[in-house]
Amino acid sequence: MAKYGFGLDLGGTTCKCGLFTNEGELLDKWEVPTDTSNGGVNILKNLAAAVKEKMAEKNISADDVSGVGIGIPGPVSGDGVVNRCVNLGWGVFNVEKEFSDELGGIKVKAGNDANVAALGEAWMGAAKEYSSSVMVTLGTGVGGGVIINDEIITGAAGAAGEIGHIRVNYTEEMTCGCGNHGCLEQYCSATGIARLAKIRLAMNEDESGLRAIPTENIDAKAVFDEAKKGDVVAKEVVKRACEYLAQGLQVISAVVNPEAFVIGGGVSKAGQILIDEVEYRFNQIAFHGCRNTKIILATLGNDAGIYGAMKLIL
Amino acid sequence: MAKYGFGLDLGGTTCKCGLFTNEGELLDKWEVPTDTSNGGVNILKNLAAAVKEKMAEKNISADDVSGVGIGIPGPVSGDGVVNRCVNLGWGVFNVEKEFSDELGGIKVKAGNDANVAALGEAWMGAAKEYSSSVMVTLGTGVGGGVIINDEIITGAAGAAGEIGHIRVNYTEEMTCGCGNHGCLEQYCSATGIARLAKIRLAMNEDESGLRAIPTENIDAKAVFDEAKKGDVVAKEVVKRACEYLAQGLQVISAVVNPEAFVIGGGVSKAGQILIDEVEYRFNQIAFHGCRNTKIILATLGNDAGIYGAMKLIL
Repeated sequence: MAKYGFGLDLGGTTCKCGLFTNEGELLDKWEVPTDTSNGGVNILKNLAAAVKEKMAEKNISADDVSGVGIGIPGPVSGDGVVNRCVNLGWGVFNVEKEFSDELGGIKVKAGNDANVAALGEAWMGAAKEYSSSVMVTLGTGVGGGVIINDEIITGAAGAAGEIGHIRVNYTEEMTCGCGNHGCLEQYCSATGIARLAKIRLAMNEDESGLRAIPTENIDAKAVFDEAKKGDVVAKEVVKRACEYLAQGLQVISAVVNPEAFVIGGGVSKAGQILIDEVEYRFNQIAFHGCRNTKIILATLGNDAGIYGAMKLIL
Repeated sequence: MAKYGFGLDLGGTTCKCGLFTNEGELLDKWEVPTDTSNGGVNILKNLAAAVKEKMAEKNISADDVSGVGIGIPGPVSGDGVVNRCVNLGWGVFNVEKEFSDELGGIKVKAGNDANVAALGEAWMGAAKEYSSSVMVTLGTGVGGGVIINDEIITGAAGAAGEIGHIRVNYTEEMTCGCGNHGCLEQYCSATGIARLAKIRLAMNEDESGLRAIPTENIDAKAVFDEAKKGDVVAKEVVKRACEYLAQGLQVISAVVNPEAFVIGGGVSKAGQILIDEVEYRFNQIAFHGCRNTKIILATLGNDAGIYGAMKLIL
């Protein structure tokens, strides 16, 4: 009986790798550089070699392996076809089939990295107690994943859980990376919060601890740090970002009404101040049946992806 | 082998009833008055009597019946517990268990009526070709249902698919029936469209065919009828309602990215003009991965509920 599995979280620079028991115990963790040269043609070969090497090192045979799950930085269809991952140089092909061939037939399941991280938090992290949850990852951009009955909702075009591109401002003039205007990502990503702060500071010359920082160095962390000290301007920026985030959670809850929202990504290191602000605003605007949905911090950090990838194969 | 089933769509005035084959052929259709006296204590008894009567009439034994599905005008949890249906006078109880007891043990499955109608359209109606779809019912209010992998997403508190309470206007001063401000229902329901028209007509005194109608008689049908004739004011009202609806579809698609949106309810009788307006605006604001999601008219009309209820038991 197969007892082990691998969870891989593939990024543009490195691939995080985890060896797990089927029960979800992380036995070993390492990284493999991502070779994006030549349209990323070596990526799966290198990962297959790394997995086989680990199997040899740990004396694990192919029969002992339930499968290899992998999170991919781009859209992945339900049957494992990737559709242009710009960070990897990849075009359109069936990553599950190709990777499985490289692995001598070991079962492979692939998913979008943000969705897979949500699955990781749902399986072994913050949302462990819940069968439905939506993760919102506040990083350089804003990603997410929708988990219903312990499974990822992928969407017709692999675009379910594109939380960062929920439109929350109908008057925005700046363009989002996706080409639209007014996406959640423009206000709640690390970049978005820094942008809100810079716009606010330029509005007038009132006092703020943020003015001691060179403008180009103002980031989300600085904003939250100053807000925690009681800085009025920084608190205003946090309030605004959290209003937008609460609006995003409002609409998500009216669509899928999850048991819990999991807030992760670099911005979530701000901690309880973020949760408290969002929760307060969410409960003001949520449909009554959705109020008191749990809003909690992610707990797996950068390991959410490898946990979720492992869960894909179970 | 059981070959038949019943699909019931319970409303505050009558319950629509359908006798189906398991393949989805509607064999007979009738209505039973809803007796809401005494906290609705007779409703299930009357429905059980109606089902048994039909079985006797058609010579169908209990062994021939796969089950009875029922759509309820209120929230229903995944295990069949209703939580206060104001239109029926009901409190909190397990409707599946009680109704099954009344039916001598025949299997019962219950769901929210709007969700169940969505399931009906997904099974035998407009979204028959799709395994994922979201129905938006534009009636007196706005309801909806989210179907993923041919199943209803119920939500933690039975509030998934509460499409009418997606917040689409952050500056609305009028209160929605739910107590919030700026819900989709305030603009896209029959009532909401009439309201938009009245507000628009009061803005100035420019010419419009709508001015020939006594204000209290202006309804969504009149607005669409005038818009079809080219009336500038009516077209403006249709445009505004469709902007809000497109915004609702924008956020739904970023959350669950369905293959199709099904537009139903009384307002959808406006026909292709509604679809064209919404589709145009949706494709302007949708996340690129979600563009070209099919937007189609419901086809089952008032029978969507009985079809969906029948599907619940399969």
